[in-house]
Amino acid sequence: MSLFPLVEDGEAAGKVRAVFDDIKATREIDFVPNIWRALANNPDHLELSWNKLKAIMQDGKVDLLTKEIIALAVSITNGCEYCINSHSAAVLRLGLDREALGEVVAVTELYNGMNRVADAYQVEPDIRQKG
Amino acid sequence: MSLFPLVEDGEAAGKVRAVFDDIKATREIDFVPNIWRALANNPDHLELSWNKLKAIMQDGKVDLLTKEIIALAVSITNGCEYCINSHSAAVLRLGLDREALGEVVAVTELYNGMNRVADAYQVEPDIRQKG
Amino acid sequence: MSLFPLVEDGEAAGKVRAVFDDIKATREIDFVPNIWRALANNPDHLELSWNKLKAIMQDGKVDLLTKEIIALAVSITNGCEYCINSHSAAVLRLGLDREALGEVVAVTELYNGMNRVADAYQVEPDIRQKG
Amino acid sequence: MSLFPLVEDGEAAGKVRAVFDDIKATREIDFVPNIWRALANNPDHLELSWNKLKAIMQDGKVDLLTKEIIALAVSITNGCEYCINSHSAAVLRLGLDREALGEVVAVTELYNGMNRVADAYQVEPDIRQKG
Amino acid sequence: MSLFPLVEDGEAAGKVRAVFDDIKATREIDFVPNIWRALANNPDHLELSWNKLKAIMQDGKVDLLTKEIIALAVSITNGCEYCINSHSAAVLRLGLDREALGEVVAVTELYNGMNRVADAYQVEPDIRQKG
Amino acid sequence: MSLFPLVEDGEAAGKVRAVFDDIKATREIDFVPNIWRALANNPDHLELSWNKLKAIMQDGKVDLLTKEIIALAVSITNGCEYCINSHSAAVLRLGLDREALGEVVAVTELYNGMNRVADAYQVEPDIRQKG
Repeated sequence: MSLFPLVEDGEAAGKVRAVFDDIKATREIDFVPNIWRALANNPDHLELSWNKLKAIMQDGKVDLLTKEIIALAVSITNGCEYCINSHSAAVLRLGLDREALGEVVAVTELYNGMNRVADAYQVEPDIRQKG
Repeated sequence: MSLFPLVEDGEAAGKVRAVFDDIKATREIDFVPNIWRALANNPDHLELSWNKLKAIMQDGKVDLLTKEIIALAVSITNGCEYCINSHSAAVLRLGLDREALGEVVAVTELYNGMNRVADAYQVEPDIRQKG
Repeated sequence: MSLFPLVEDGEAAGKVRAVFDDIKATREIDFVPNIWRALANNPDHLELSWNKLKAIMQDGKVDLLTKEIIALAVSITNGCEYCINSHSAAVLRLGLDREALGEVVAVTELYNGMNRVADAYQVEPDIRQKG
Repeated sequence: MSLFPLVEDGEAAGKVRAVFDDIKATREIDFVPNIWRALANNPDHLELSWNKLKAIMQDGKVDLLTKEIIALAVSITNGCEYCINSHSAAVLRLGLDREALGEVVAVTELYNGMNRVADAYQVEPDIRQKG
Repeated sequence: MSLFPLVEDGEAAGKVRAVFDDIKATREIDFVPNIWRALANNPDHLELSWNKLKAIMQDGKVDLLTKEIIALAVSITNGCEYCINSHSAAVLRLGLDREALGEVVAVTELYNGMNRVADAYQVEPDIRQKG
Repeated sequence: MSLFPLVEDGEAAGKVRAVFDDIKATREIDFVPNIWRALANNPDHLELSWNKLKAIMQDGKVDLLTKEIIALAVSITNGCEYCINSHSAAVLRLGLDREALGEVVAVTELYNGMNRVADAYQVEPDIRQKG
């Protein structure tokens, strides 16, 4: 029930068209995911966001699958429905099966719980782990 | 400034002593991290938490390093200081260097931001990604 | 799929009727938004919440549009769908256009990200900014 | 390292003095907790907040101890250090011992975890529980 | 729109069947709530989660109704729709009426607000409350 | 107690030195805030983050003071201590006095509370506000 229209391919011009084309080419897909169509309501923000994401979401010292797993764990922690859907799909596409993805959920659950234990008891850092 | 005393080795008896011993043996460390000493204020909760964590935090379909990376991303997202400290140390110990850990931070930052874009624009799931 | 019925105009009596009437008069609208109808399940909480909101959400040292922008940024950060919808509408009604609202989203995204960088690196306050 | 000075008893005048006196009388304490001294930087906000809190935090259909337990569970979930400290102290003062408080922490941990499982798997409400 | 199928009674075997049977027996219900059917995508995680929950969610030093109230307050704070639905139903079933449940909402609202005041003003703990 | 060293001016070279110089020039300050020194542990992430922030945090359709107010409201909502400190200082420097800043805190508190009411009662969007 968004108040924001999604920008369709036919409406995309200038900066927006360039980003839409780059998304399809980079991701090797033939459609533009809805989040980029929504961001196109502000073309500068669209361009900045896509460029930053593109630079980060590639194999580096950390590989792309691990990065998508991080994206999923963050999205679950924040309860972002669109994002959970999108990153679950990405992680399955990059090679995890559903049982492995269940382990990602298990670890995400575990530490959302343990974080609160540490905060509840106001636990001080372990001296022997100091950097 | 916790209202909860940390249970020291000398005070640990019964269930608490058994868990403390298991933590040291399983993790191959010669001290009990503070979070377990705090949890020992309620021995049943200590035992349940340790047994669940021990079962999950081992190599499975997803390897232990990736699981620690998830734990770190979750802890950063929740802003849990003790946990960030502890999981950063674990990730460095398991083989990432500081620049690689910087990539983990970058991805965590990126999706904490993008999650809000998806929520702000109330973006509907992409039909072509449906399961 | 709420377990709570919305209180309709015809059912509103006493404290609830008085608040419903005040909402319509103060906001210059001819209907009572759903959140107040839900709150009417507990008339005391309805009255307390409306009186506090009414006192805060008016021009003060900070003008009402800026206050609605804050409400929107908070609602996006918390991922509250009803609230995002309601405050987006309010901000557009008070004069921002969609591109300006896109800037609000951009800043909200930016700092939801940067907050995690500061937490991840456990950054100490800058001495020169001390109050 | 707050940029906001705490308002001291000697500086409290008018609305601020009245609220400070009411806090001491209502709570039967001989000092004003720091959060109210900070809020006094904006006397109207101080008055609104105290009046709302005073109206809610008393025995009603739900008793005061249960209300303080809720306050603690919320504060742990949000990771608010001052609040955790303050509500842990309140709960102990109202009669729970440390082991019982450990059960409150256990339930808070459990559902911070389970909430993420429900979000991760995008679980639909159970039809048989519909209101 | 989950990417994860819910495991139906007919598909449940081994570990999954045992947990499903135990859920129905322990909770005295004739169906398995959806969250457990989703968790069954990873049988080990299902078993671990159910065993931990079963051990915690019973009368102890803190009674079961209070534990369900904590679960509800946590779920509201995290904005988990399935969980809010499920724990509201549980709390009503265990004896609270809608007005009492409105008090739980009021306290949850109050401290989600006050937590931010304490953080905004970076309030130091009250010395006289130190443990 | 960060495990990450802050990069000092003397150590800054290449990409890091260029960003540090740009920060001082753009912000008209003679020191580099700690968050950028921490980010310098990963020079690519430093550059990406600074360039995005610099593009967004200037007068646009929304003025810079309002953007800093949004940054503060987000930081309070997330409980990020460094960020609250930094953005409170920025807002005061750009012209708000402490009482006005108190209004920002009041609105932030109000909607962190009201967001939970909307979630608790699972309130549906108001039909008359549909876009």
